Amino acid sequence: MSSNKRHVVIVGGGFGGLTAARALANAADIAVTLIDRENYHLFQPLLYQVAMAGLSPAEIATPIRSVLSSAKNVKVLLGQVTTIDIHARTLTIAGDVHTDEQQLSFDTLILAAGAKTSYFGHDEWEKNAPGMKSIEDAIEVRRRVLTAFESAERTEDLALRAKLLTFVVVGGGPTGVELAGAVAELARRVLTQDFRAAHTDMARVVLVEGGPRLLATLDPQSSEAARAQLVELGVEVKLNTKVVGIDERGVQTAEGDLAAGTCVWAAGVSATPLARTLGAELDRSGRVLVMEDCSVPGAADVFVIGDMAAFVEQGKTLPGVSPVAMQQARYVAQLILDQTAPEQRIAFRYTDKGNMATIGRSRAVAEAGKLRMRGFIAWMAWLFVHIWYLIGFRNRVVVMFTWAWSYIFYRRGARLITHSWSETRDSLLSSTPPPAQP
Amino acid sequence: MSSNKRHVVIVGGGFGGLTAARALANAADIAVTLIDRENYHLFQPLLYQVAMAGLSPAEIATPIRSVLSSAKNVKVLLGQVTTIDIHARTLTIAGDVHTDEQQLSFDTLILAAGAKTSYFGHDEWEKNAPGMKSIEDAIEVRRRVLTAFESAERTEDLALRAKLLTFVVVGGGPTGVELAGAVAELARRVLTQDFRAAHTDMARVVLVEGGPRLLATLDPQSSEAARAQLVELGVEVKLNTKVVGIDERGVQTAEGDLAAGTCVWAAGVSATPLARTLGAELDRSGRVLVMEDCSVPGAADVFVIGDMAAFVEQGKTLPGVSPVAMQQARYVAQLILDQTAPEQRIAFRYTDKGNMATIGRSRAVAEAGKLRMRGFIAWMAWLFVHIWYLIGFRNRVVVMFTWAWSYIFYRRGARLITHSWSETRDSLLSSTPPPAQP
Repeated sequence: MSSNKRHVVIVGGGFGGLTAARALANAADIAVTLIDRENYHLFQPLLYQVAMAGLSPAEIATPIRSVLSSAKNVKVLLGQVTTIDIHARTLTIAGDVHTDEQQLSFDTLILAAGAKTSYFGHDEWEKNAPGMKSIEDAIEVRRRVLTAFESAERTEDLALRAKLLTFVVVGGGPTGVELAGAVAELARRVLTQDFRAAHTDMARVVLVEGGPRLLATLDPQSSEAARAQLVELGVEVKLNTKVVGIDERGVQTAEGDLAAGTCVWAAGVSATPLARTLGAELDRSGRVLVMEDCSVPGAADVFVIGDMAAFVEQGKTLPGVSPVAMQQARYVAQLILDQTAPEQRIAFRYTDKGNMATIGRSRAVAEAGKLRMRGFIAWMAWLFVHIWYLIGFRNRVVVMFTWAWSYIFYRRGARLITHSWSETRDSLLSSTPPPAQP
Repeated sequence: MSSNKRHVVIVGGGFGGLTAARALANAADIAVTLIDRENYHLFQPLLYQVAMAGLSPAEIATPIRSVLSSAKNVKVLLGQVTTIDIHARTLTIAGDVHTDEQQLSFDTLILAAGAKTSYFGHDEWEKNAPGMKSIEDAIEVRRRVLTAFESAERTEDLALRAKLLTFVVVGGGPTGVELAGAVAELARRVLTQDFRAAHTDMARVVLVEGGPRLLATLDPQSSEAARAQLVELGVEVKLNTKVVGIDERGVQTAEGDLAAGTCVWAAGVSATPLARTLGAELDRSGRVLVMEDCSVPGAADVFVIGDMAAFVEQGKTLPGVSPVAMQQARYVAQLILDQTAPEQRIAFRYTDKGNMATIGRSRAVAEAGKLRMRGFIAWMAWLFVHIWYLIGFRNRVVVMFTWAWSYIFYRRGARLITHSWSETRDSLLSSTPPPAQP
């Protein structure tokens, strides 16, 4: 890397980081290093489809390297950034099984490391209610949901079977709404032909939301439309219901207990802990309170974008959705390309192009400006937007085919219960039968 | 299940078990229970493609339930069979997180539980050289291979980088040959554009075989053709080379040490430990020495087929390949349907329709009867046969598309490094940065 080039380091290969890297690609005087903990960009809006066995992980994840393959001034590193010194302009990447801890210096930093699941101080709930932020989460939820149906088929204890066929989703945001609709469909449509003892169409799906309505960031009209469509699919929607406990018995709420074999947490996120190492002021969700130009107060060349940033516009913090991250990324990249001096920067403005959430295989709500859609037409809009933005042409085609296939035949292609390699190895060892009795 | 039906229990949903269940499907007087540790049928011949990021797990695995969905007399159970009492005609299924241990009785038993990786008494090698028998194995190998390239990109230590870019495959059977060819192609063709510091086309791929030739069950002419084609791809083939140790440094052989970042074990299998609980005589690989009708000596209604059985024909044990398992399954199912008395059974005969192995994306060897093929024509034959036998029409179409795509563009769609959920959770917790220094 020649020393007369400015070195821009991007932490995170999500919507924000990747958009920034693309915007800086092949700029003559800039060398970019993008660092991510994972080797792939994850299309998070479709993560619930992996959890519900509709799509395979590789269909919603693309190697960051191959996305940036033609951006010759961008170097991609797989690694975990542990600390950042914004004044010395250095950061530390943790060592791994093969390599040692590493220091990296930068001229400009773009932090776009996203958010993680938050249990609001109840980390003990995680064991019985995985979140929905990573591929690993989605595979774990898939494993639990499919295993619950398998165990329900095996057991002859009717109370246990009823518990195993009860699924609780906590959190009425887009992920919770999409998950609850998808579980109901999986049970009532996809699996019915495949089980003999367990009547999967009797499965109970409960969506628990603490607030007075679903999809709180959308119009109340859309919230009600989403609720009505979920009820049509057979989902029990419990609004104004606070969760007070989650354990192996199920979910406890202020209104009573729900005996459930599987619970999924879609109720909250907070910024990645990396934000804390900056020494900057954070909001309640651990997000960095950034300036009008997305920079950290006192460090004009350190930008924080996307879910890691709390950007306040007209008294409201922008929501943690991909369009915010992508627009911020393009804005920040332009500042860097133009070398705009801090005092000459024009504040970032978010253009809200609309919001949507899907509910099962032909229902959705969508809004754009004054337009409100629901039902099949909203679902078509949702489908089009999501497939369009899927990274990589191949993934678009495969996802389209997979969806057309399951739309027509009500079949799911990715119904695999997988374990970790080390767990499998351990279970193989422990399953060696005891010596025959004399 | 009405009591006047004969109860046939099948253990294992591989090629043998699934073929048997299909052959018994909808027989009026028979109730079938198929038990497998996994909820999917795995198309093992393409497992190396998952390990090499060419295909996704779901593309080579289909839920057993959905394959047998229309076989209304077949009940599928997910569970691990731990012991079998062939005289009392009962077996035990281990309990799991939701259900208790369970007893099941049968009139007829078909054991088709397959084989597992064997390290010939050196289980300590497993940690540094995963096998290639399960989806979990393949994902682990994929993780290790991709991580090695990533670490090679990160490190500035040239000796370490050379070690990380060295891959050793142990075992010159079809799996080893296919893997070695695929690693070489991944490094030299697929990844070259995506890395900046690591020159992946300099990667060293070594295939180590203890015997004097590759693909020992094929004709010597095919063995030599396979060797020559691997060398064309840049693979170092070391014949007559005994492995004496495998650890984190690499592979030690009688001829010298190979410093390698990644090693894969494709050298041997033995029958699943379940075979031992039968009390029947086993061969050196732990396989049950069966009678001419595939039954266990002394138990005419207990059959063992596929990789779990040692079936001796003209002094030679049949190889552990899917056609043997499938032909035995059809043969045994017919005996059961016809209720043929033991003394009237005509011995099983294996019809060998041919053998093949692929080497990279347009090379292969194939033989059928007197016919010997190599190169592109053999590869086309291999492709056709493998896609044709892939369970499920959807998988056939998706795999065909995936291959056409990577054939044209040299791209791989499933280059994901994934971890287990619990590992991920632990690493997230441990990565919480220490409090800032005062």
